[in-house]
This record gives sequence, C-alpha cells and structure tokens, in this order.
Amino acid sequence: MGKEDVGITVSKNDDFSEWYTQVVLKAKLADYAPVKGLIVLRPDGYSIWESLRSTFDKKFAKNGIRNGFLPILIPESLLGKEQKHFAGFNPEVFWVTHSGTNEIGDRLALRPTSETLAYTLYSKWIQSWRDLPLKINFWNTALRAEIKATKPFLRTSEFLWQEGHTVHVTQEEAEKEVMKILDIYKNTVEEELAIPVSTGKKSEKEKFVGAVYTTTMESIMPDGKALQMGTSHFLGQNFSKPFEVKFADKDNVEHFAWQTSWGVSWRLIGAMIMAHGDDKGLVLPPKVAPMQVVIVPIYRNDEGKNAVLPKVEEIKNTLESKDIRVHVDEREGLSPGYKFNDWEMKGVPLRIEIGPKDIEKESIVVAKRYNLEKINLNFKEIEKIPTILEEIQVEMLKKAKAEAKNNTLDISDYSEFKLKIEKGGFFNSPWCGKLECEDKIKEETGAEIRVIPFGSEDTNQKCIYCQEQSASRPIFARGY
Amino acid sequence: MGKEDVGITVSKNDDFSEWYTQVVLKAKLADYAPVKGLIVLRPDGYSIWESLRSTFDKKFAKNGIRNGFLPILIPESLLGKEQKHFAGFNPEVFWVTHSGTNEIGDRLALRPTSETLAYTLYSKWIQSWRDLPLKINFWNTALRAEIKATKPFLRTSEFLWQEGHTVHVTQEEAEKEVMKILDIYKNTVEEELAIPVSTGKKSEKEKFVGAVYTTTMESIMPDGKALQMGTSHFLGQNFSKPFEVKFADKDNVEHFAWQTSWGVSWRLIGAMIMAHGDDKGLVLPPKVAPMQVVIVPIYRNDEGKNAVLPKVEEIKNTLESKDIRVHVDEREGLSPGYKFNDWEMKGVPLRIEIGPKDIEKESIVVAKRYNLEKINLNFKEIEKIPTILEEIQVEMLKKAKAEAKNNTLDISDYSEFKLKIEKGGFFNSPWCGKLECEDKIKEETGAEIRVIPFGSEDTNQKCIYCQEQSASRPIFARGY
Repeated sequence: MGKEDVGITVSKNDDFSEWYTQVVLKAKLADYAPVKGLIVLRPDGYSIWESLRSTFDKKFAKNGIRNGFLPILIPESLLGKEQKHFAGFNPEVFWVTHSGTNEIGDRLALRPTSETLAYTLYSKWIQSWRDLPLKINFWNTALRAEIKATKPFLRTSEFLWQEGHTVHVTQEEAEKEVMKILDIYKNTVEEELAIPVSTGKKSEKEKFVGAVYTTTMESIMPDGKALQMGTSHFLGQNFSKPFEVKFADKDNVEHFAWQTSWGVSWRLIGAMIMAHGDDKGLVLPPKVAPMQVVIVPIYRNDEGKNAVLPKVEEIKNTLESKDIRVHVDEREGLSPGYKFNDWEMKGVPLRIEIGPKDIEKESIVVAKRYNLEKINLNFKEIEKIPTILEEIQVEMLKKAKAEAKNNTLDISDYSEFKLKIEKGGFFNSPWCGKLECEDKIKEETGAEIRVIPFGSEDTNQKCIYCQEQSASRPIFARGY
Repeated sequence: MGKEDVGITVSKNDDFSEWYTQVVLKAKLADYAPVKGLIVLRPDGYSIWESLRSTFDKKFAKNGIRNGFLPILIPESLLGKEQKHFAGFNPEVFWVTHSGTNEIGDRLALRPTSETLAYTLYSKWIQSWRDLPLKINFWNTALRAEIKATKPFLRTSEFLWQEGHTVHVTQEEAEKEVMKILDIYKNTVEEELAIPVSTGKKSEKEKFVGAVYTTTMESIMPDGKALQMGTSHFLGQNFSKPFEVKFADKDNVEHFAWQTSWGVSWRLIGAMIMAHGDDKGLVLPPKVAPMQVVIVPIYRNDEGKNAVLPKVEEIKNTLESKDIRVHVDEREGLSPGYKFNDWEMKGVPLRIEIGPKDIEKESIVVAKRYNLEKINLNFKEIEKIPTILEEIQVEMLKKAKAEAKNNTLDISDYSEFKLKIEKGGFFNSPWCGKLECEDKIKEETGAEIRVIPFGSEDTNQKCIYCQEQSASRPIFARGY
C-alpha cells in the first residue's frame, strides 16, 4: 500500500463536499457503480445499514409491524391511479419497456415508492374490521432518477430504505401510528447514530405528494445545511378511496380505511458520516460500528511477539465474551503508525495498543476515536471497555447536540435572515402560514421550511416576510 | 369469514399443481402482483425467508463472508462483456430505456445476476494478495422474464435470492470454497427445512453459463419432479480475465484471480411447501415457522373463560421464556373447530387446546401438525414442548428422506426408464458422458441430468442410451 491510500487529504472545514466523498471512498463504505447515480455498498458500509435494520425491526415488531416483500415493477396504469402522487414522481421514474426482445404494452415503472402497489393488494386482503390494523413494512430499494451529481448515501438514483404501510379503522388510530413511528425514528437516530433531530410537520408545499400531512425529522449538518432524516405520513383516505381500501365495520357497513406510510433511507448513514467525521476520517458511534475495538499488537522481534500475542488473544476473548466486536490487526510489514492512521480513517471507536513494555507494566493504551483521547488501563480494568463504549455513545450525542444548538438561531428580522443564511444554520423564524411568503423566502434566500416543530404555533409575532400575524415558528434552512 | 375461505378444496394427490397454489394463497404466504410473473410476500411467507437469511448469515459470517449491496441496474455494454454469459441471459432480460421522458443511451438491464457488475468493482478493489480472499454476499432480487404461467416461489420473473461472489489467490482455495458453500446449503436445507438433497455436479450442458463447472443440490418433490435447490459455481478465470480481476502476488507478479459464485432463492420455500404440505394445507418445520405454537382457549361462557385464560397466559409466558414463538387465538365468535382448521391450513407445528375440563384434569391437549397426532400433557410436562418441537423437526426430515428414497430408482434399462419416467422419480442411470446421449434422453423422455452425484464415477456399466462404456451414474429426472 502506498502513502496515497492513507488519510483524507482535505480538511472538513475547508472543503466539506470533497472531504465527505473521500471519507466514504477511503473508509471503504461505498463506491461508485458504472451507471451514473448509482453506488455500491462495501461490507463496512452495508454493515451499518444491517445494524440499523435490526434495531428498527425489533422496534417495529414490538409495535405489531411485520415485514413483507413487494416486487419492483409497477404498471404505469397503476402508478397513475392517484394523480397528484403520479405527477410528483413521474419525471424521476425509470421505465422498463422490453423483456428480451418483446415490447411491453403497459410500461413498467421501477418502484419510486410502493403506495399504489401495496394498496391494490391491501384492498384485496382487507374485508372486515377483523383484518385491521394491517401493518406491514418493506425493506427494499426505491429508484428515482437523479440528474445532479451523485453523492453517496445522499443523492443516488437507487437507494436502500424501508417503507411502512399501515391501515386502520379510525382516523385517530392512524394519526397515533404516524406519531409512534416518528418517535421510533427519532429515538433510533439519536440513540444509535448519536444525531439529534428536530421533529414536526412539513408545510403544505413540502409534504409528501398524496398525503394529508407529513411529519418529519430534520437534522442540521456541520456545513449548516438541513438533512431530512425520515418522514411519517398521514394519508387520511386519499389513497383508500381511489384504491378501494374498504372494510365492513362491526355493524356491517362499509367504510374507507385510514392509512399511513413512512420511511427512512440510507441517508441516515450519510448523516452519520457528516455529523461525526473529522479530518482524520470516519468516526463511528459504537452501537453501529462493524468493529468496535481494534487491537494493534506492537513488537519488533520474535521475543516481543511471543510476549505480546498471548495477552492480545486473552483481551480479545474477554471482550468477545462481552459481545464486543473486536478485530486484531496482525498484518505483517506495516508500521504501528500506519495502522493507527488506517483504523482512525475507518472510524473504529476504540483502539488498543499493546507492546512488550505494556506487558511489563501490566497495562494497555486505549485510544478513543471520537475525541482522540488516549488513556491507560491496567489489565484489571479491561472489563471497563464495554462501559467506555457506552460512554462514548452518550458523549457523541451530547457533542452533536451542542453543535446543533450552536447552529440554531432565533431570527425575526428578514435582513438578518438574509445575511446569516449564507453561513447556513437552522433559523427559527415566525411565519404567517401563507405559501406566498414561503415561496418568496425560498426564492430570495434558498432557505425552505424544513419542519414546523410540534408546539411551535405562535400568533404573537409578525411573519418575518410580510409582517402580518404569525401562525408558527418553523425551522428554515437550506437543504440537501 | 365465510366457509369458502377455509380449507384446501383439492387433494395433493389428485391435483398437485392446484393444491400447491391454494396452499400458497390460503395460508397467506404470497399473492399475485398486478404484473404477470410477479408475486408479493405476505408476512407469514416473508418471515420464512427472514429465518433462512438469518441462518445463512450466521454460517456465512463464520466462513468470513460479509454482506454488501449492489444496485439493480447494469449497463448493456457491461452485461455483454462475457459473451456466453450474456447469450445465456439475454432473452430474459428486462430493459430500462427511459428515465422520466429521457431516453437512455446504453440501455440498462435489471440484474439477472450480478457477476459482471460485481467483478467490475472487484477489479478496482483488488490490487495485491493482501486483498484476498475477498468474499461478499448480496441479499437482493434477480429479474428474469418468465413467459410460462406464474407459480409462486418456483416460476416468477423477480425472485428473492442471495448471490455470493468470492475471489481467491489459488485455484485450490476457490474450489474448496465452492464445496464449503455447497455444504452450508445442504446442511441448512436439511436442518432448517427438513428436505433431503442430493449433491454433485451439473453436466456441461446444464452448468451455469460462464462457469468452469457448477455444483448443485437437487431434491425430488412429491410429484416425482426434481427441483434445483441451490448452486455453487467454480468460475475459474473465466470472468477474472475479461474483467481483469488481477492481483500482485508476494513476488510482485500479476496474476488473474480464481473465482466462485453461488446462490439460493425463495424456491426453497416452494420446496418446503411441496415436501411437507398435506390435504389440510401447509405443514411448517418448527425451525422456520413464524409461529411455532398456537394456543386455542375453549370456553362457552364467562365462567369457563375465567377458568381458562389465566392458565393460557401462564403457558404462553412459560413457552416464550424458552424462546418459543407462541400465539394465543383469542378471536371471538369463531368455533374451536373453525380455529383448528384455520391453524392446520396455516401449518403451525403445534396446537394446544385447553378448556375448563382440561383445567380440572390439570392437562392440555397438544396436536402435532405434521402427523396430526394428538397427545395429552399434564401441566408439569409443558416444559417438554421445546423438545417436542425439536423431535418434530427431526421426524419431518426422516419422513422426507424415506419418501425421497422411495422415489429414487436404480435403472439401467432404457425401456424401463421410458416407462417409469411417466410417474416421475430420480433415476440413477449409467451414462457415457456424451452430450448426444444426454440430448436424446431429454428429447425422448423429458428427463434431464439433474446432478452427477459426487463419487458416482462408474466405468463398469453401459450407457443407458448408447450402450457404450459408462462414465458416471447421474440422477435423471424431469424438472421444474
């Protein structure tokens, strides 16, 4: 391996976009596929997705949600059944027109999202109130053609996600489900990825095409831009009517059902990279790290090797018995310094260094990736490592919360808004609720309403744009 | 629910094909999607796939294999790079020609398999012997347009599968990997799905297009037809040459690498349905059953209910504490008889019946699904249920092995072959090794060489077709 393989060559502060791409590629999370807009996940990247999937699956199951499978092809005629929905997705749809040399009559769309397909089936599966609630989640990919430059995890034409689709007897139950899911999303992102989120509703302009309303969680990235981290939609009866998702109630009268849909995607991995990475590369929160501890044995000769390796093996076994994911870097011919840089670039939360002198002193050096702190642990304290990992997880969220707070400003004056938006950030600003002002602000500053936080209704202020009475204090920001 | 929803209306022996379809649909494993050739998995069907995936993942991980993600779109130019491979798949490929209203220059194939895409990337990722072995598995779907009638799990244009792709320094190591995987496949299918398999090589005619050779596992279904259950291919350097998958060895000389690829699909679920189901419906092996035990409380009035339900709850908790997947059928307004039929149709391995009289006698009735046997257990024996489930798993494999043995015949006479093939079965018959005889047998009887079992080399017989010296005793059968 040459020097050129090692390390990130730009600073996160100087060129955020280039820094991000280098981290993704050099930490071997992902790579570009031969088709523009598409990426491949390498095992270290996919493993993070598997970890998130497993956490969500447990929480979904507790909430009575089970997984299913939907095919990727949706006939054009079906996709067009809910017109606003179709108009929203149509420009990005990939169309299959041939199988082998045969032309296909009704063109087939690669799923941009599966509402139309799922609800066609739900309409067959649901007859009575006994069949409800019906709650199914699908782990798959969605395809939406991107014309802008590819950005791994953030802007790709195919992305891994989950889409959940539930059906309920009452509006109240469906709306509760929307909130339950948003809550699962929020606590998973905060607890597993150590990224704080702001939750609330999208504006009418920004909601999911076809929804009654969309709830969202948004995070602010270190470059001051907002990233949508997940959405949970209340669909009302907007789909149950055209798709005839009906049930006979206890009194045998037929009703249209109430529905929700919701999803998170591998964007969460992109957010994790941006939120925690530094100039040395990736920084992984311990809970989702494919490898939580790497042990680098240090020796110059066979004598050293014989002194060090048995202890390394012992530490490895101790940690594995506590369900810690450990790796021993036994690569020959690479210097300890090279290895340290390599594992730092890959973001492994803890590195243990152990050489003959450490054996004599009965202690090891433990380097924390997130703050680059080094501590000494004597052999008896090795038991503490699981606790140290838990503390790191907590500290990373604290640090990210403090940064997010720093980047969130209360701004009620439009000149200040226009000035400060150049540096980015979340701006809490009063708004009258009218589309016209929302459009003008977007046009003049590039900032959108990312989320109207729950409880941010506020009629005591003046709209930052038109000066009329405010309705709420949304978070405005430029977005990804 | 009307009577028409309940029960399978044809016998497995009378109309196997219709029986199969009814089981799939009525046990709610799968349903047809709006596009011909495509199916949807409902939670009870998908759960079986999740169980298999989890078992394979553990075994793959132990063998140093990790998971990754590949996009579904492959450019036509790339798919065509290995010509035989391309010619093999070309007629079944779905082609994407447009994104939105834009025509795509180099048409995009929906992955029929990912060798060409994976190896384009591997060629970038692999530089030195240090990067090998590289072993990545991908859980995804493959798309191959089916023109024949859709058969859930067995003949669909999109199917869930895993495809593994490994790269090695030496031929020997690659060939060992091929066998290791085949072994994982065999023991998983036998232990989890209770289906015996015959393993060996495919003939040159039947091997994977592009492989040096293909190893396979084949099972005989109750209708006497063979089903390919999984394949593990030795690719040699057939792909590493056109795709330039090269590595610098320790001496710094560049070599083409040795490769394998291998896969199993949701066909395994189809095989499980066929192998174990009966006239009452599905029969699930306990290890993969989404629900292993269903408890049906029986009572006519509140007094009975109050006597029964606390015990039901207690049994449920006892079993759950032993990691048994239990469900209590508390549906009101349905008779016990209706419920028994319903759970039998859905194949739940054990049903517990408990009414006021059982409470008095301190015992429960336990009905085994696979042989319809009913036993009484007193309350103290409830602890035995996990063991009973294990025994059922073993018994189901034994039973399936006996059936497979019954359907496997040694036949050396071609008139007998032609006569008996009408009833189906696995025929162990001597063969000279020539394509011509293989073709003629297929043409005249519909039977193909499904597998040449390991160790079946045999030069002491005469080819069943041409009477020349035999080379081996393959298994001939008509296939799915």
